[in-house]
Amino acid sequence: MKTISVKSTEREEMIEITGEVSNLLPENGAGVCVLFTQHTTCGLTINENADPDVKHDMLLFLKNTIPQYYEGFRHFEHNSDAHIKSSLVGSSLTIPFENGKLLLGRWQGIYLCEFDGARERKVLLKII
Amino acid sequence: MKTISVKSTEREEMIEITGEVSNLLPENGAGVCVLFTQHTTCGLTINENADPDVKHDMLLFLKNTIPQYYEGFRHFEHNSDAHIKSSLVGSSLTIPFENGKLLLGRWQGIYLCEFDGARERKVLLKII
Amino acid sequence: MKTISVKSTEREEMIEITGEVSNLLPENGAGVCVLFTQHTTCGLTINENADPDVKHDMLLFLKNTIPQYYEGFRHFEHNSDAHIKSSLVGSSLTIPFENGKLLLGRWQGIYLCEFDGARERKVLLKII
Repeated sequence: MKTISVKSTEREEMIEITGEVSNLLPENGAGVCVLFTQHTTCGLTINENADPDVKHDMLLFLKNTIPQYYEGFRHFEHNSDAHIKSSLVGSSLTIPFENGKLLLGRWQGIYLCEFDGARERKVLLKII
Repeated sequence: MKTISVKSTEREEMIEITGEVSNLLPENGAGVCVLFTQHTTCGLTINENADPDVKHDMLLFLKNTIPQYYEGFRHFEHNSDAHIKSSLVGSSLTIPFENGKLLLGRWQGIYLCEFDGARERKVLLKII
Repeated sequence: MKTISVKSTEREEMIEITGEVSNLLPENGAGVCVLFTQHTTCGLTINENADPDVKHDMLLFLKNTIPQYYEGFRHFEHNSDAHIKSSLVGSSLTIPFENGKLLLGRWQGIYLCEFDGARERKVLLKII
């Protein structure tokens, strides 16, 4: 088991961790890389890492659609929006690799999606 | 392969199964636990298990945003909302474990999300 | 590592690939089948494969809720909706199998969800 630490600086933010994940793969190895975040107000996803406007548009849409303050919300920490986004985006990823390299498509990057920062986050990495 | 049975009592409900999953892990073992639900109108997710208001807020938001009756829906069973929620939340989870214990964060619990109950549901558990 | 090719013919479409996946499983084998799509504007999901109206309703709802043209979107390719849907539906699946057969429920089918077609898509399949 290995751990990647991620520090967010804003409440909502997508932070690319493709490089950190790649560095922890066994050299020349093949298998599946399982990523798992131990938090309930962030998520893990794979999306485009070429044009940063994709991140902007995704965060804008999620913020508008799942607002922090919403009629009927009861949770006293006022971050139910972040919990909902976490469950919809998901808290784990499974990515195949070969020859020590992630089998990502040309435009794919791995992101920690911060929905209730700024915080320090941990992502577990397990090779199977 | 092991199976966890879950009985829901309401149409929409989040039922924690962390204990049931933990009990099925190999003593002192390490690896990844794959959970898979064999249904198309429920889901599996990880979220906060401290304040029950988080569950309330999540179910409220999903119910309002993805209504059971929606202009244009054709499916004769009138549960397309549940199918959509199932695909968004997801029907499987991959969770690493060590020393026979799930590597969940302090506030994380595993939930079966019932979106079209009351029903009896099955969750498969496979260790890899 | 094996590859499944999928050809979409519309912008938004759910294409069942259960048969293709089943054909690539090891005869009489048991384990977990990991599916991974190398694209950022489609997804993989499991949902009902009996009544095609479920697919219709899901695509209709996603199209209405996550529109292609949305105030504030900046991405020059005008397909941010597809990127968002991809992250919400997810780009991988983990499905247990036994005796060379997927342990799907009676009504479950595996779908590639095209959100920005028509295109040729690739799905990687890795057995663990």
